[in-house]
Amino acid sequence: MSKGAGTRDRIIERALRTASVDGLEGISLGRLALDVGMSKSGLFAHFASKEALQLDVLAAAAEKFTEVVVHPAFQTQRGEPRVRALFEHWLRWERNESLPGGCIFMHAIAELDDRPGPARDALVDWQRQWLDALAKAVRIAVNEGHFHAGVDAELFAFQEYGLVIAYYHARRLFNDPRAEERVRGAFDALVTAARA
Amino acid sequence: MSKGAGTRDRIIERALRTASVDGLEGISLGRLALDVGMSKSGLFAHFASKEALQLDVLAAAAEKFTEVVVHPAFQTQRGEPRVRALFEHWLRWERNESLPGGCIFMHAIAELDDRPGPARDALVDWQRQWLDALAKAVRIAVNEGHFHAGVDAELFAFQEYGLVIAYYHARRLFNDPRAEERVRGAFDALVTAARA
Repeated sequence: MSKGAGTRDRIIERALRTASVDGLEGISLGRLALDVGMSKSGLFAHFASKEALQLDVLAAAAEKFTEVVVHPAFQTQRGEPRVRALFEHWLRWERNESLPGGCIFMHAIAELDDRPGPARDALVDWQRQWLDALAKAVRIAVNEGHFHAGVDAELFAFQEYGLVIAYYHARRLFNDPRAEERVRGAFDALVTAARA
Repeated sequence: MSKGAGTRDRIIERALRTASVDGLEGISLGRLALDVGMSKSGLFAHFASKEALQLDVLAAAAEKFTEVVVHPAFQTQRGEPRVRALFEHWLRWERNESLPGGCIFMHAIAELDDRPGPARDALVDWQRQWLDALAKAVRIAVNEGHFHAGVDAELFAFQEYGLVIAYYHARRLFNDPRAEERVRGAFDALVTAARA
């Protein structure tokens, strides 16, 4: 890796940590330069604008999500085991060491839902891909004969999405000690209802 | 109502609109003064600090929520009808005319989950009250014989909470035309499974 690429990655990694706590709008280029030990103009040499950096942060978050959630889950058997693995890894995502403030996507959704632009487009695109991947795993579980043919894969993904956000809130906002037990109970009920 | 109270309400109403779009941190006292047509020092006469205003905005949002969601639902019959009414009014909440950017609580959760302080405490307190009210309505439905005795009321509230957030995201972020159909389908499944 070239020195430039290394520095760039280090800046993005740091900005991702900040965005996890304070959102994409919470990224301050001045503060970021201080944190990574370079001048603001030195930092600007790597990013054309704050908006460009925000896009890079979202792309880095998506890449990390793919690495720690999607790839491990795809190493499990097709069908119900993979559906469960996607859920399990997703639950753990918000505790990833790169995310001191929890899931960056949840924060970005609150910020960007009313702000048209490239960052919102990238976020929507990413979230759609993820919902599609969840639904596809459900359809495969139907094809494998693990789930019954009447299962609505998109609805399943929608329900799963809701459960995971409710869990993130219960854990991070309410410090609910039963959050994990609840989300697992609810997900089990979903899977049981889907079984062939 | 005194003139002071009227002005104060007008400021809070305006700040609530801003917070719905840009979050509680998005409230700028200078901008707010401009919007309501008064000087910044005139505005400061009503609020000791931005933090105090944020607390007032959260309280105003909770009051409005009680008015447009809780009260109408409590006019319906105890049991399943009330459980359904709470859900129906909650779905419509984020389209309230006072919330151009959608549910202010969702935005505030993303902002405040990592920020200890009075605003976070107030938000947690409010969200807990709401989840308790949902669970209580479910317990009443059990007592009325509409739902079976094995229903876990807290789990039901958790599942419902997840569905409503998933719906808000589907509608506001993805502009999903099937969002309403999905959330109703999922909620119906929840109610059907709970029936005695």
